[in-house]
Amino acid sequence: MHGYIDNKEELLKRLRRAEGQVRGIQRMVEEEVYCIDVLTQVSAATKALETVALSLLDDHLGHCVAEATRQGGPVADEKLKEASAAIARLVRS
Amino acid sequence: MHGYIDNKEELLKRLRRAEGQVRGIQRMVEEEVYCIDVLTQVSAATKALETVALSLLDDHLGHCVAEATRQGGPVADEKLKEASAAIARLVRS
Amino acid sequence: MHGYIDNKEELLKRLRRAEGQVRGIQRMVEEEVYCIDVLTQVSAATKALETVALSLLDDHLGHCVAEATRQGGPVADEKLKEASAAIARLVRS
Amino acid sequence: MHGYIDNKEELLKRLRRAEGQVRGIQRMVEEEVYCIDVLTQVSAATKALETVALSLLDDHLGHCVAEATRQGGPVADEKLKEASAAIARLVRS
Repeated sequence: MHGYIDNKEELLKRLRRAEGQVRGIQRMVEEEVYCIDVLTQVSAATKALETVALSLLDDHLGHCVAEATRQGGPVADEKLKEASAAIARLVRS
Repeated sequence: MHGYIDNKEELLKRLRRAEGQVRGIQRMVEEEVYCIDVLTQVSAATKALETVALSLLDDHLGHCVAEATRQGGPVADEKLKEASAAIARLVRS
Repeated sequence: MHGYIDNKEELLKRLRRAEGQVRGIQRMVEEEVYCIDVLTQVSAATKALETVALSLLDDHLGHCVAEATRQGGPVADEKLKEASAAIARLVRS
Repeated sequence: MHGYIDNKEELLKRLRRAEGQVRGIQRMVEEEVYCIDVLTQVSAATKALETVALSLLDDHLGHCVAEATRQGGPVADEKLKEASAAIARLVRS
């Protein structure tokens, strides 16, 4: 069972809200709203997705990586490598 | 007329794709896909939104800010201040 | 004359402080300080450099790009393209 | 013993290089080099610091957090919370 399952509903709620934000930005562009106001909403939607990512990462570290660490050996090393790559992608996106 | 109007269809296409990505992430969470794979898609959706933001900003600088600069005076100063604040939000989101 | 010249002393002061922060992080590593405390200082130094970058960008937009915009023609287009690329590097660094 | 001790020399080498980059940026500002060229170097120095941070984080997760996880209990929870907060600071700096 993956780490985030306990927070599944909270994640889905945040993702639906982010989806709504992106649809809202589409409407702003269709209605030709002022650039800066559209940009402000894009930054907000980006932050919302970052919050989802950080929550997923927390759960992954606290469950999947922790479980593998307790087992030790190559499984643990692989999980850590995977988590580090995911963190690097997040930091650089 | 705002800067991005010439690129309106391209922006809407990118935003619809980003919306689809966020919906796809919801499905992954509903189907309890492995955390790292979900995280990879969240980074991709974040990058897609950043591309939209950079495109909006380019058009804004090239049209709205450029137009105000040609007029000069307080209007130009205000537009530059606004653009700088939007860039800072983007850099820090 | 480049845009940042009026803020040269302020920029140099911030850069010297950032240099001091990086040297301080070296000392922490030499003294084998706890990882999280070192990480906190690295985030602070990164933020300090971002502040320098945003200040440089503001001045560049307000002077060099504005001046080129007033002249118009290919010089203005080139300056805007350059500024957009610099903003994209900042957003993605 | 903290996680990064095995990589101490590599970290110090990267930090000295980052310090040199920041000093180099100071010289560029003193010599009034073109804004965009200075900005390019600031982005490079920021990326260098991010690489240091990601390396520190990898080692921390692989040693300090892993060790605490094997022990289990409140120590492990505390270490995970700390790591998550450090990751969030990195993502948002």
